[in-house]
Amino acid sequence: MARLSTRITTINGGGDDGWGVFLKARRMIAQGTPVTELTIGEHDIRTDPSILAAMDSAARAGHTGYAMVPGTDRLRDTVAKRVTARTGVPTTRDNVIITPGGQAALFATHHATNDAGDTALMIDPYYATYPGTIRAVGARPGIIPTRSRDAFAPQRAEIDRAVETSRAAGSTPRSLLVNSPNNPTGAIYGADTMQAIARAACDHDLWLISDEVYDTQVWEGDHISPRQLPGMADRVLVIGSMSKSHAMTGSRVGWIVGPEQGIAHLIDLATNTTYGVPGYIQAAADFALNAGQQLEDDIGAPFRRRRAIAQKVLGAQQLVGSIPSQGAMYLMLDIRRTGLSGEAFANRLLDTHHIAVMPGESFGASAAGHIRVAMTVEDTAFERALGTLCEFAASVA
Amino acid sequence: MARLSTRITTINGGGDDGWGVFLKARRMIAQGTPVTELTIGEHDIRTDPSILAAMDSAARAGHTGYAMVPGTDRLRDTVAKRVTARTGVPTTRDNVIITPGGQAALFATHHATNDAGDTALMIDPYYATYPGTIRAVGARPGIIPTRSRDAFAPQRAEIDRAVETSRAAGSTPRSLLVNSPNNPTGAIYGADTMQAIARAACDHDLWLISDEVYDTQVWEGDHISPRQLPGMADRVLVIGSMSKSHAMTGSRVGWIVGPEQGIAHLIDLATNTTYGVPGYIQAAADFALNAGQQLEDDIGAPFRRRRAIAQKVLGAQQLVGSIPSQGAMYLMLDIRRTGLSGEAFANRLLDTHHIAVMPGESFGASAAGHIRVAMTVEDTAFERALGTLCEFAASVA
Repeated sequence: MARLSTRITTINGGGDDGWGVFLKARRMIAQGTPVTELTIGEHDIRTDPSILAAMDSAARAGHTGYAMVPGTDRLRDTVAKRVTARTGVPTTRDNVIITPGGQAALFATHHATNDAGDTALMIDPYYATYPGTIRAVGARPGIIPTRSRDAFAPQRAEIDRAVETSRAAGSTPRSLLVNSPNNPTGAIYGADTMQAIARAACDHDLWLISDEVYDTQVWEGDHISPRQLPGMADRVLVIGSMSKSHAMTGSRVGWIVGPEQGIAHLIDLATNTTYGVPGYIQAAADFALNAGQQLEDDIGAPFRRRRAIAQKVLGAQQLVGSIPSQGAMYLMLDIRRTGLSGEAFANRLLDTHHIAVMPGESFGASAAGHIRVAMTVEDTAFERALGTLCEFAASVA
Repeated sequence: MARLSTRITTINGGGDDGWGVFLKARRMIAQGTPVTELTIGEHDIRTDPSILAAMDSAARAGHTGYAMVPGTDRLRDTVAKRVTARTGVPTTRDNVIITPGGQAALFATHHATNDAGDTALMIDPYYATYPGTIRAVGARPGIIPTRSRDAFAPQRAEIDRAVETSRAAGSTPRSLLVNSPNNPTGAIYGADTMQAIARAACDHDLWLISDEVYDTQVWEGDHISPRQLPGMADRVLVIGSMSKSHAMTGSRVGWIVGPEQGIAHLIDLATNTTYGVPGYIQAAADFALNAGQQLEDDIGAPFRRRRAIAQKVLGAQQLVGSIPSQGAMYLMLDIRRTGLSGEAFANRLLDTHHIAVMPGESFGASAAGHIRVAMTVEDTAFERALGTLCEFAASVA
């Protein structure tokens, strides 16, 4: 075989990717062993039939040809109106590009802000694809560690240190990726944290890439988009998606919101990478975004309920600690008092009780000694699994 | 606004992109002037209702969650079987990745084969996005000029010259992009040309990226995939798409076929760029590919008919020359005897007769003095427009 690019062959960065427990659970299920699956961030419901009906009627009405590369005027307007309403930042169609999903938006925003060899900063623990996405654009991940006792909120000193480290290595830091509500921790950054991040971005002349795909899943406190902080709109690229808010994970439709000139260049990139999003999917997204608050509330409700269940179960014991879960569909649990690593704990829990959770280490070094629990099975099974998990922790402690 | 990457801000390469006539036609249409539109490579039919029904039933059956990133086993198997049958090259699921359209496949194959600063070779005239796609991965386009009198088939000496030029500039050539049946010329590379290209790829240790999205639109001669030439399967990445073969342009579904190890890395890239293709679109594609030859013949039939009409109209005059059109949905016409550039000709034809065609210059310097006619309006209007075009040419000659 001819030689492949260094960039593509190093996307995975080498080493264990931390998905061993997940893959073992998949194999057990394939072999017929019942496993309670608490690994993956996907709803246990499907896309609402009313959304699928809107998609089908758009397709049958003839929206099957090339759609405009930046997105349909209609969906861009709907997103702009939604963002304006939610953040107060005046936003028009020209501030919006529709992308085939949040992941495509993550890739495009890093492509737009980093050249080969630049450093894209990111906060540990992190969503699984972040480092690979940064390497895929030829940039270097600049890791900002956080601490469990800070609920994994980034501290200014650590941001500064990551900037200095990258400069010392001869690389220019260009962007800082933040994600609130957070996957994997369930934390929501408060005003102080978000303001400190914004100041750091200004002081170091960084783009802020704000992954806000969980912005409708807020159980406690308020979601703050950094784009709404004073003077920040020209420095922030916001990533949105229909995946989590409307249970449309498989439809691959999301967006980037940012300064007009940046969006214009992102449209050039889209012309040469994805060439737009199916018109009928955009029609479905537009329908869903205009379907009203109740639909979004219904989609978030199971996670809200299960979070309350978790608070009850976890509150009845002292051994397993929990990071305050304010949003998204995850719990980050501190199992350090068992003396096990997250990986050892997850492996033994799977082997002995057929419950699959993600080791914290899968999301970066900062979450060592933790596990992530996705609240994505029905309430009774969820409550039972969490109870078993606590008993298991007590048994090994 | 903070600084954007050099890579994204230089995607367009600067200078006129040659789409002025196209945009002028769009403005005229928007203002109510009827224009015969012969610019864009899109069918004048919509996706077949049977395909849309397959999509809708897959969506309603619950295929709305994350699909496997490399594509569903079922669609990968169907594509593998199709490629094996059409080329004789043993091909399995592991040689196939499903992509959100041919453009995403163009981007991914160039990403996989070129690092920043490498040279990706391409043949002039070319499809509009080729240079931008190469620049989007941070590589340099290495242009291989061709001649009208060779029906724009690349000559070995020109390939060698482009390789030498890139090496002299300190850049390593890594890939050669070929497209047969060709857009914009309608030419199909014969066995001699394809073998010469394959030898050049071996001699210079290049990947061959073979864009075969028009492989079902063959009106004369045979389509040869370079992957089927002896010893080439490990050096060729083939791009396929449902867009042209099944009138599914807007659905954004295509694939890459290549060596297993290369596909494995392309799956890593997909994880970090697009995260797969909607499962219900893959179900629709699978249905369409298994719907039988008649469907594909029906979709190609209008172009086959219009090509016969064009041969009749053009055969009745001597002034406008034509590149032998053997495939795809285009005619490349030589209007040099009018003394006008392609751009001047196209502009004046639009102004005086409200017929929009693409200047050859839009597709690169080699097609100067030519125009591209897309055979994408119904037969009577097409015949009339082509007749008017010939009369116009005579009137200005």
